[in-house]
Amino acid sequence: MQSYPQSPVTGQMMSQPLSISSIIQFAARHYGGSEIVSRRVEPDLTDLHRYSYRDCELRARRLARALVERGIAMGERVGTLAWNGYRHLELYYAVSGTGAVLHTINPRLHPEQIAYIVNHAEDQLLFFDLTFLPLVEAIAPHCASVKAFVLMSDRAHMPLETRIPNLLCYEELIEAASSDYSWPLFDENAAAALCYTSGTTGNPKGALYSHRSTVLHAYASAMPNVLNVSARDTVLPVVPMFHVNAWGLPYSVLLSGAKLVFPGAQLDGKSLYDLFEREGVTFSAGVPTVWLGLINYALQNGLRFSTFRRTVIGGSACPPAMMNTLIDRFDVQVIHGWGMTEMSPLGTTGGLLVKHLALPKEEQRKILQKQGHAIYGVDMKIVDDDGVELPWDGVRFGHLLVKGPWIVASYFRDEGGDVLQDGWFPTGDVATIDPDGFMQITDRSKDVIKSGGEWIGSIDLENIAMAHPAVMQAACIGVHHPKWDERPLLVVVRRPGAELTREELLGFFEGKIAKFWMPDDVVFTDSLPLGGTGKIQKNRLRELYRDHRLPGT
Amino acid sequence: MQSYPQSPVTGQMMSQPLSISSIIQFAARHYGGSEIVSRRVEPDLTDLHRYSYRDCELRARRLARALVERGIAMGERVGTLAWNGYRHLELYYAVSGTGAVLHTINPRLHPEQIAYIVNHAEDQLLFFDLTFLPLVEAIAPHCASVKAFVLMSDRAHMPLETRIPNLLCYEELIEAASSDYSWPLFDENAAAALCYTSGTTGNPKGALYSHRSTVLHAYASAMPNVLNVSARDTVLPVVPMFHVNAWGLPYSVLLSGAKLVFPGAQLDGKSLYDLFEREGVTFSAGVPTVWLGLINYALQNGLRFSTFRRTVIGGSACPPAMMNTLIDRFDVQVIHGWGMTEMSPLGTTGGLLVKHLALPKEEQRKILQKQGHAIYGVDMKIVDDDGVELPWDGVRFGHLLVKGPWIVASYFRDEGGDVLQDGWFPTGDVATIDPDGFMQITDRSKDVIKSGGEWIGSIDLENIAMAHPAVMQAACIGVHHPKWDERPLLVVVRRPGAELTREELLGFFEGKIAKFWMPDDVVFTDSLPLGGTGKIQKNRLRELYRDHRLPGT
Repeated sequence: MQSYPQSPVTGQMMSQPLSISSIIQFAARHYGGSEIVSRRVEPDLTDLHRYSYRDCELRARRLARALVERGIAMGERVGTLAWNGYRHLELYYAVSGTGAVLHTINPRLHPEQIAYIVNHAEDQLLFFDLTFLPLVEAIAPHCASVKAFVLMSDRAHMPLETRIPNLLCYEELIEAASSDYSWPLFDENAAAALCYTSGTTGNPKGALYSHRSTVLHAYASAMPNVLNVSARDTVLPVVPMFHVNAWGLPYSVLLSGAKLVFPGAQLDGKSLYDLFEREGVTFSAGVPTVWLGLINYALQNGLRFSTFRRTVIGGSACPPAMMNTLIDRFDVQVIHGWGMTEMSPLGTTGGLLVKHLALPKEEQRKILQKQGHAIYGVDMKIVDDDGVELPWDGVRFGHLLVKGPWIVASYFRDEGGDVLQDGWFPTGDVATIDPDGFMQITDRSKDVIKSGGEWIGSIDLENIAMAHPAVMQAACIGVHHPKWDERPLLVVVRRPGAELTREELLGFFEGKIAKFWMPDDVVFTDSLPLGGTGKIQKNRLRELYRDHRLPGT
Repeated sequence: MQSYPQSPVTGQMMSQPLSISSIIQFAARHYGGSEIVSRRVEPDLTDLHRYSYRDCELRARRLARALVERGIAMGERVGTLAWNGYRHLELYYAVSGTGAVLHTINPRLHPEQIAYIVNHAEDQLLFFDLTFLPLVEAIAPHCASVKAFVLMSDRAHMPLETRIPNLLCYEELIEAASSDYSWPLFDENAAAALCYTSGTTGNPKGALYSHRSTVLHAYASAMPNVLNVSARDTVLPVVPMFHVNAWGLPYSVLLSGAKLVFPGAQLDGKSLYDLFEREGVTFSAGVPTVWLGLINYALQNGLRFSTFRRTVIGGSACPPAMMNTLIDRFDVQVIHGWGMTEMSPLGTTGGLLVKHLALPKEEQRKILQKQGHAIYGVDMKIVDDDGVELPWDGVRFGHLLVKGPWIVASYFRDEGGDVLQDGWFPTGDVATIDPDGFMQITDRSKDVIKSGGEWIGSIDLENIAMAHPAVMQAACIGVHHPKWDERPLLVVVRRPGAELTREELLGFFEGKIAKFWMPDDVVFTDSLPLGGTGKIQKNRLRELYRDHRLPGT
């Protein structure tokens, strides 16, 4: 790591490296009785798994010893293909705690991509949930670095026959290992975890987190302006542990002493609703598409939430209509979050300031729809195509750049070369920042519609479309225009049973935007292409509608 | 600093030292419009001073430049004798931000002690509020290291004649300095601030904080389990910036974007109440004696709080009666805090767990009266006289030991030599810890009453006495007993106008404690001796009652 000028006088405080194992040790010692409840992944096990922080630490310690006994050394990678559950949590702590590197893999990626990143990471072991047995059978022959595959279940769930070489049983590994293991201390800049971005172009690239970055992110993300996790909360992370570290909740929840509830593989509206009610969930976090399922289920069945009071929504922008429904119909506070795999992942969260508390509801809602303030530790700025910083006036939008101790300086194995611009990480997002420091994403840099030399933000247009009661999903892309280079095209999925014409929807935009921003056309479709993390694949849409002929051209 | 084993694989995150200047830069950039409101120290200025985070950073930067221009080098100490106000805040950031060391001095100490610590710290400059002009005139001749004294006011408030050599005017310093200054980056273990403990025995000893320890403490203390500061809060720190860093609020408030209100020198009940109401204070923090004044004022005048909803009480234990009054009469949530100058200062805070939320109010109240959970980063244990760790059963009490990255490893200039016990800092407190991790202070190690080989906790006895409606203050000390070595003596100040006899008060203890714990005697007095930080001086009491003859001896 870079070194900085020394002071002739050093503080006389205890020296202690920041470490992920310190979180699980703290949790077990100081909040030992706090509960962890998990929906099981094995389809025949319908009860919920329950244990305490204390139990979790003990099993993580035995697992750590098993890893060391199998020769996993500091810095070596251990892969996981798993849902949000207690065994995955044990791996989070056991792998990083020994000094090895936890490599969480997104099972929604194409099997070829999964094999690519297992090989690129040189995973030594690959742990996987029962769900992914067929997937692992398919990729195992292509994973040369993997010395053993570990099925995250007990002996009863092991396959009788398998093509997977060297298949081990998770529970047997733990049973065979002694708990006589002490979490080692090492330099806090040691690599701790690896997560690949699902890049839409080129090969996936790995963000390699350190113990220092993970602990700083955990402190920052627990704060009231961010995830606001306390020992009085019951937290259900919908956002997956197999991508972007479930927004750091496996760390921030445990250091806060909250009750933790894992949904396993069942992320449909009914399953989530039942679990929220049964376990008294107060706080959850996830992407908009998941909330869509939950909201629709609750609305269709006339249900309300007994304990659920707060959610952080990120991954992609929360449509204003969804925010309104959650707040007005369900009394659930919505905090807008923004971040990236490359940012551990949290960068900003929404929320009001003191001076906004007396504003009318509608004014407040407009503020809450912004992605909000940088989290202390993160700095951000917006720049034009030439890298010149733009003013924070809430109007001008530019490329969003960030820096901070939990943001990547480069990718694993230096894929993509030197990624920073003058020390700042280019997020690939386009945003405005207002004089109060509220950032609002207006687009992805590659999705912004460049029309006659001006920029049109596709997300603004989508949000307006989504506010129409007959619209279930909407995406806006730029398509070729002979005079303006690009003009906006709306691609819309109607609500089941709803009627809506092109003219009605365009009429709905009247008076809400500048004339210049008005979409040139609307097409209706049955579904939008989604990527591995549930986001709409706009590059795929642009391909599909490349030859779309806009009216009047 | 100590070094730890390196991993062969280092995380690929941005390298950035933790620094105090990063807080003020963040605050000015991202919450630039947030307000700082101060009662002024100059007696003729009765309006409130108001400005923004942005203004504060600009003035701190000019002040930093002025310090550098006057030759203040990295690691050199700069003293302050000042109330909670905006100029003191500017010094917090300007001094540490340049790499120099902010030395906050408790003006309530004896002038000889103040001169001692100014010399011990070798303060190069001494900044002081107008209030302390006579004090500084008295000590100036004895402060050889101080090159200049700076009165924290404008030209109009400078004395026409003074015996102070080299007296400068704060506002003139700032006006003369250019804002052309960039906050430097340096190693995060650099010393940042120095605070002397008001040791009751021996000379005061300095705790020398680093940038790293201060920033980690700031993150940790902002969390919902601790001070719980958000951008929606209006925070009034009653706890002084001249001691224990106002519990870190000058840092945690600014990184949270909250509105900050400073009370200046006026800490009486009426002044505080007026300021709370006028500025919409939602959260405050201070020692019990301050709340006593505020509560009595509000009760006597039949007042309620419009916006005040949460307070952290620490410094000494919050009497249960006070907690009940704040919660039941005023609807103010009380969080018990515990810490020490040597701990930056926060160690634990109270609060319920998920499983306590359904308990009856009385049961919850008992839990809230404990000092609570270690803050993530801090570890704690209790040991007997031989250093053997005691069980966490909520009953056994022992010496409380702590460790963590914001706890001293040694004192400034190594006063007191090697203070750690096997890597742990002995707090001098005696405590129980229950199976859920709740710590409760039962005594100071030196105040515990050792009777017939058993320990009797003086604070438990005081709390019971304080719950009697006729008792205003109570202290319990051990006095010599020919058979039992020591037995408890209660020293009590009655409420004005209240009647109470020895027998009535002892009768009040019946059934509340083991017979063995019953105080042997009660004496009534008009006042209890208080130290420089408002705590009851038990060593002084023990001296006063050394020859007290217990009944039956």
